[in-house]
Amino acid sequence: MMAQNKYDDGVFFDEFMHLPSQALGLQGAPEWPSFRSLLPAVRGTKVIDLGCGQGFTCRWAREMGAILAHGIDISEKMLDSAKRFPADPAIEYEHSDLETIELPLKSCNLVISSLALHYVEHLPSVIAQVFKTLTPGGIFVFSVEHPIYTSPSNPQWTKDEKAAPLNDYLNEGPRSTNWLAEDVIKQHHTFATYVTLLIQAGFSIGAVIEWGPDKE
Amino acid sequence: MMAQNKYDDGVFFDEFMHLPSQALGLQGAPEWPSFRSLLPAVRGTKVIDLGCGQGFTCRWAREMGAILAHGIDISEKMLDSAKRFPADPAIEYEHSDLETIELPLKSCNLVISSLALHYVEHLPSVIAQVFKTLTPGGIFVFSVEHPIYTSPSNPQWTKDEKAAPLNDYLNEGPRSTNWLAEDVIKQHHTFATYVTLLIQAGFSIGAVIEWGPDKE
Repeated sequence: MMAQNKYDDGVFFDEFMHLPSQALGLQGAPEWPSFRSLLPAVRGTKVIDLGCGQGFTCRWAREMGAILAHGIDISEKMLDSAKRFPADPAIEYEHSDLETIELPLKSCNLVISSLALHYVEHLPSVIAQVFKTLTPGGIFVFSVEHPIYTSPSNPQWTKDEKAAPLNDYLNEGPRSTNWLAEDVIKQHHTFATYVTLLIQAGFSIGAVIEWGPDKE
Repeated sequence: MMAQNKYDDGVFFDEFMHLPSQALGLQGAPEWPSFRSLLPAVRGTKVIDLGCGQGFTCRWAREMGAILAHGIDISEKMLDSAKRFPADPAIEYEHSDLETIELPLKSCNLVISSLALHYVEHLPSVIAQVFKTLTPGGIFVFSVEHPIYTSPSNPQWTKDEKAAPLNDYLNEGPRSTNWLAEDVIKQHHTFATYVTLLIQAGFSIGAVIEWGPDKE
């Protein structure tokens, strides 16, 4: 089964590209400082970015001294956009579906993934691939939409944007939302599922952050 | 500062003692099978139970072959009730507040705590004490009320018992609820806080379960 690829849908893509995180890059992504705080020094490392989008993080990793950045995304449009930035021979882009991805054995020191895994239904295989592609001592840093927000069977922000119904937290599976476009399918997994699958794949949990917007 | 001890409040105590988990013991606690699935073999071990209540788990551990069980609780009434069961010289009960508890160095192989730590405001000290009292390779298994349920600034079950407001998840601190009696103070900590404090204390995370009632 292939993951839904809403990013190649015209309406969704146009809306998405106007988000601050896409128009401004990492500086426009409010969660970036928290995400970055989890990253090890990238100088001299090889990095894979799962769900690389326009390649902001790949380019950032290269600026920080990574010797190779490998960005993977399901969206041809996002990859086309990534390739419009000045070419860097040490950045490779690959079109692939995280549901079925195969990564090479021990190919890198750091795998990152920002807000992509909540589109993946079958997490065990992608997590196993990440573990396999990391060299010993390698690190996996990822963010997903908080399970509290993917929990409701019909997710939506309430008017005050502070409360969300929680009637289905333990019931994992697809959730259809109207975020930027209609019927965007996210896959709800619980917090315990993420932690358990990581441990089962061989990872040790190093840190967990639950991020929320500050007043600003 | 001392934790609130609602268990020695007459109204609360009387209501609490009629819950299935108290009237029937572990068989009346619906989450017990999940909790037990996380426990290692207890035969031959020394066990501490933080928030031991009437001592059901201490007695269970002894039946399973633990050589010593040490139950600790803030409630004199609960400990009095525990002592009404037939005496076992290998079970010790201690009256102590988890907020300020001091545990002996490397005294046991297993620390358990069932639905007690969500009353503790300052988790780092109790978690450090647990780490300190475990022998190398020792295990800490605990349950807390899910942070989703302690999150709301005014927690309450809605009429359909399926939805709870979530307006304050990242805002940690006391929550006053009317569970069995008025103004029962629970301390809301996020999922990330529990995981982070455990890692900072020196623990490796072995497993996480998010439990919810099944249809039965």
